[in-house]
Amino acid sequence: MNSYWEITTKSKNSNARTGIIQTNHGKIYTPAFIPVGTQGTIKSLTPEEIKNLDIQIFFVNTYHLWLRPGDKIIKQLGGIHKFCHWNGPIITDSGGFQIFSLGKNTFTPRGNFSTEIQGGKLVKKTKKGVWFKSHINGTKHLLTPEKSIQIQDNLDSDIIVALDDCTPYPANRKQAEKSLQLTFNWALRSLREYQKLQKNYPKKKLIYGIIQGSYYKNLREASTKFITNLEFDGIGIGGVAVGEPKQKMREVVSWIIPLLPENKPRHLFGVGEIDDIFDFIEMGIDTFDCVMPTRYARMGKILTRVKPWFYDIKKSIFRKDALPLERNCQCYTCQNYSRAYIHHLFKTRELLAYHLATIHNLFFFQQLMEKIKKAIKTNQLNKIKQEYNAI
Amino acid sequence: MNSYWEITTKSKNSNARTGIIQTNHGKIYTPAFIPVGTQGTIKSLTPEEIKNLDIQIFFVNTYHLWLRPGDKIIKQLGGIHKFCHWNGPIITDSGGFQIFSLGKNTFTPRGNFSTEIQGGKLVKKTKKGVWFKSHINGTKHLLTPEKSIQIQDNLDSDIIVALDDCTPYPANRKQAEKSLQLTFNWALRSLREYQKLQKNYPKKKLIYGIIQGSYYKNLREASTKFITNLEFDGIGIGGVAVGEPKQKMREVVSWIIPLLPENKPRHLFGVGEIDDIFDFIEMGIDTFDCVMPTRYARMGKILTRVKPWFYDIKKSIFRKDALPLERNCQCYTCQNYSRAYIHHLFKTRELLAYHLATIHNLFFFQQLMEKIKKAIKTNQLNKIKQEYNAI
Repeated sequence: MNSYWEITTKSKNSNARTGIIQTNHGKIYTPAFIPVGTQGTIKSLTPEEIKNLDIQIFFVNTYHLWLRPGDKIIKQLGGIHKFCHWNGPIITDSGGFQIFSLGKNTFTPRGNFSTEIQGGKLVKKTKKGVWFKSHINGTKHLLTPEKSIQIQDNLDSDIIVALDDCTPYPANRKQAEKSLQLTFNWALRSLREYQKLQKNYPKKKLIYGIIQGSYYKNLREASTKFITNLEFDGIGIGGVAVGEPKQKMREVVSWIIPLLPENKPRHLFGVGEIDDIFDFIEMGIDTFDCVMPTRYARMGKILTRVKPWFYDIKKSIFRKDALPLERNCQCYTCQNYSRAYIHHLFKTRELLAYHLATIHNLFFFQQLMEKIKKAIKTNQLNKIKQEYNAI
Repeated sequence: MNSYWEITTKSKNSNARTGIIQTNHGKIYTPAFIPVGTQGTIKSLTPEEIKNLDIQIFFVNTYHLWLRPGDKIIKQLGGIHKFCHWNGPIITDSGGFQIFSLGKNTFTPRGNFSTEIQGGKLVKKTKKGVWFKSHINGTKHLLTPEKSIQIQDNLDSDIIVALDDCTPYPANRKQAEKSLQLTFNWALRSLREYQKLQKNYPKKKLIYGIIQGSYYKNLREASTKFITNLEFDGIGIGGVAVGEPKQKMREVVSWIIPLLPENKPRHLFGVGEIDDIFDFIEMGIDTFDCVMPTRYARMGKILTRVKPWFYDIKKSIFRKDALPLERNCQCYTCQNYSRAYIHHLFKTRELLAYHLATIHNLFFFQQLMEKIKKAIKTNQLNKIKQEYNAI
């Protein structure tokens, strides 16, 4: 293995595995779900609450922090960890996705969660990089692979991500090829910039390369071989959860997995829902990020084990309901509040509503991941799938 | 004194005093500032956080909880304390103010804070009570003194308040007299209903009567004598902070104070700012409620000892500021975050912004009250006034 990555168990029934990623700010026990804290805050939670939820790492968005308050200001203030009072690991993205996701040249929004992404307007995409207009004040900026790595380095991210071109769905063969060529070029340049910056750096930040290739098998295979042969510390799979049917997403990952080396952790971007989590862990994915639990919480969608794995607490049937959000849930919210009170907070748009629902939804995910980790070790993943109605 | 009220110190230099109010859910050490939690929640805080801030009691609004979710539902669910997971004292208002404050027949909004009050539309005010339309769905309701007390009793409030007619400012002599007659009638009926409901009740809820009389000395004096002669447990002063100049408010309170008995605690409604707090404590007021610190927090107005006792953290000068909100402040926010981060959270409208600013502002008030209590005991109130630039 590598100094920063250790596989601790392999499942006997599937490709599932448990492992440990070592970062500059602590360990991540995998499989792990990574909540999103776009602006350097998981919406409504203090870092102490994040820690109490056993959340190991969260995602912040390079695009947003670059434009506001600026990566240089964050560096001056001691880096992202000090800035947001979180001393655990942080992963950043390359910044490209936010530009592409609302860009003129892309053809799809990001599945169900596009409102979470308030990106800039794409102006021009070239080999050099991406010209775009800020969503805040309309100013023009150029994001290059070098710039992306510099920003992530300034933020002092623990896991840096190479700039890629997230191919929209659907894309024809020619579009997909052209897009993949950009990803190739930008991957090489991202890695070179990273190596330059990391030289003589006392602690090792990790860098992930990203596999693209749309829904074409040989492009995905070519991309996988290309990225795995470079000196990236981890492998990200991108260009999924962009509006395609769920089955297609599984198909793509199934092409990639057999070609991946064991000695690098694997991240799947923008996934997922409860059934996705189970399926992709069984396929051999180590980490996931998704805005779903936090965004659902703010919409009053409460996660539960019953399919489709959420219900709407704003419905009037909960007006007098003395039960907790979920029976037997041990989270702070369920231990102390009734559905009736949380229903009331949502109806009156009280800030505490979003807070209590976020705590429940993230606790739900953490519990799920804990159970899955144990089940991998004891080869009982099917039991957990049954418990969560995911079979 | 009374079983529920004890004066523990009297200042040698002023009418200021310290005391203890005993309620069904614990003691309140006075002088005390009472934050507002309109819907059964101090916006953005959990009850554990409220407790950590040494907040002894908070205010909930009868009007709002009556209409949504309904006092009977809250009673079924075990009362307001269980409903909102707060086992300390709670004070309710009569519900009248919210109706009047936006009513057609009233002539002024409530000073600077009217947007916090989203009341119904007043339809008709009679001796019997007040007909109004709900701000939620337009349905018509009648609030009588009896109804107000029943609702507060159902909520299981620790300090119940008699229904009064809050005379708008300015009011001519005839308007003020007519309004005061309503308050007299409603005070008697509120007390009678309270006594009926409290009969055979194992624990004693407290009830406060309210002094009105607009800005007419003899009306205020008549009102004071009337209310103090009834069997109310505490005295509230209403009809202030309704848009009049600050000096007028002091004048009115100065007419009332000499006529008040010592054996009942005194509450001043809707006050106040830092200078108000000092002035009225010196005049002999025991408790205050005001939305200012919580509302200011949500607007990015950070309380500080420097006159005018707040600054706007949203201003761009704070973009790179590594200092805490206030130097030497021991609150959770100041101990862990920079102005730059909180500025960033406000600019990006993150929920954590309102949360962290609320903690600071309420801590600021609690610190102020602690210092004032100590200073009354040592006759050093002027020193604290200097510290807070209130001389």
